[in-house]
Amino acid sequence: MTNNLSTVKALTFDVFGTVVDWRSSVIRECAELGRREGIIADWASFADKWRGGYAPAMDQVRRGEIPWKSIDELHRMVLERLLEEFNITELIEDEKVHLNKAWHRLTPWPDSVEGLLRLKEKYIVATLSNGNISLLVNMAKYSGLPWDCILSSELAKHYKPDKEVYLTAASLLDLDPEQIMMCAAHRDDLEAASALGLKTAYISRPLEFGPEGKTDEIEDMPFDIIAQDILDLAQKLGV
Amino acid sequence: MTNNLSTVKALTFDVFGTVVDWRSSVIRECAELGRREGIIADWASFADKWRGGYAPAMDQVRRGEIPWKSIDELHRMVLERLLEEFNITELIEDEKVHLNKAWHRLTPWPDSVEGLLRLKEKYIVATLSNGNISLLVNMAKYSGLPWDCILSSELAKHYKPDKEVYLTAASLLDLDPEQIMMCAAHRDDLEAASALGLKTAYISRPLEFGPEGKTDEIEDMPFDIIAQDILDLAQKLGV
Repeated sequence: MTNNLSTVKALTFDVFGTVVDWRSSVIRECAELGRREGIIADWASFADKWRGGYAPAMDQVRRGEIPWKSIDELHRMVLERLLEEFNITELIEDEKVHLNKAWHRLTPWPDSVEGLLRLKEKYIVATLSNGNISLLVNMAKYSGLPWDCILSSELAKHYKPDKEVYLTAASLLDLDPEQIMMCAAHRDDLEAASALGLKTAYISRPLEFGPEGKTDEIEDMPFDIIAQDILDLAQKLGV
Repeated sequence: MTNNLSTVKALTFDVFGTVVDWRSSVIRECAELGRREGIIADWASFADKWRGGYAPAMDQVRRGEIPWKSIDELHRMVLERLLEEFNITELIEDEKVHLNKAWHRLTPWPDSVEGLLRLKEKYIVATLSNGNISLLVNMAKYSGLPWDCILSSELAKHYKPDKEVYLTAASLLDLDPEQIMMCAAHRDDLEAASALGLKTAYISRPLEFGPEGKTDEIEDMPFDIIAQDILDLAQKLGV
């Protein structure tokens, strides 16, 4: 561990993609629903478009075109459009609610639970996700993620990478920015955190967007730690 | 378990007095500091007055006489007055900070950790305390309290028993009031929760205020469950 990381007391984790494999999980949930309802569709494409609709939906909130919405609400907005696009008309409201909550039932990457348990011995381990609190709590129960604290963009009424999210987390943990390490598989999240003085750990998730998907290039990552996964992060932090 | 409790998905716990024995813990912390610094004082009285200063300090915020303050800040305000009253002048700033954080190092009642672990198998178990988030996170790390989620008055910028605290918790958990059971050793907390439609469990803590202290009378408690401790609550909820 490099010396300047000795200030770190808390690790805040991005969740979708960094801790859980949203893509396989959402495809699985959609395919299950499809089997039950006799719906045939390209569920991988459906999952990718569902995820793909999320950044533009956040931007609509940022530009003030629509009021603040939780990620559950944004997922639902995008879902309605996709059901139309895929010509899926059979679902009743309860099934839509259940499908939308697929994002509460995401499976961790194989190293996540063990890695967090190790890190938790030395650090506060918290979420810092655009997912809303209830989504993150339900996911932790579903997947056994051993968080010390659930922090979310919902508490700042801003989405990452807006600075308010990181500053709200620091304020609630009563820590200075350099006492927090943001851990994420996404460059923009870490760059925003770093600009505010947080320490940063990039966690490589080459399969986040599927076998043919593209993730950020590891070359020239200006972050404090570059880790292969969360167990590797634990090792690099000496726990 | 009576039938009307089948709606309950989350248990929100008061912490000071209900889950942890603040009085013995604060006396212990004060006495340790006294031994280190050679200060002799009636630490039981000191602890009782420190706790006693907290409700009036919250009222000053409620009346708008002072702006919103976290419980750490309120504890510090009261501490400054008490150090003067007890004529304790030797402490430097670092020692005052450490002493004020005695409230982060409170020991659970003997049944608390095991009881919460049992309840957690079936329910979301969350704090709903006037303690600030960082205090509650540090206490959970210190004492091994296995919370699923740390909720606090700090997120509502109101103190219990103001209704905003319970409603904020329900909103963040995305649950209806009747899906939440407030668990506390204090009648006013449960009455406020009940008035909003939350279910309620009274947890008896006869020693909260010490061997000679007075706690609420169990007779005629209009709550859904009256439990001897958190293990008894688990049993009464069938887990």
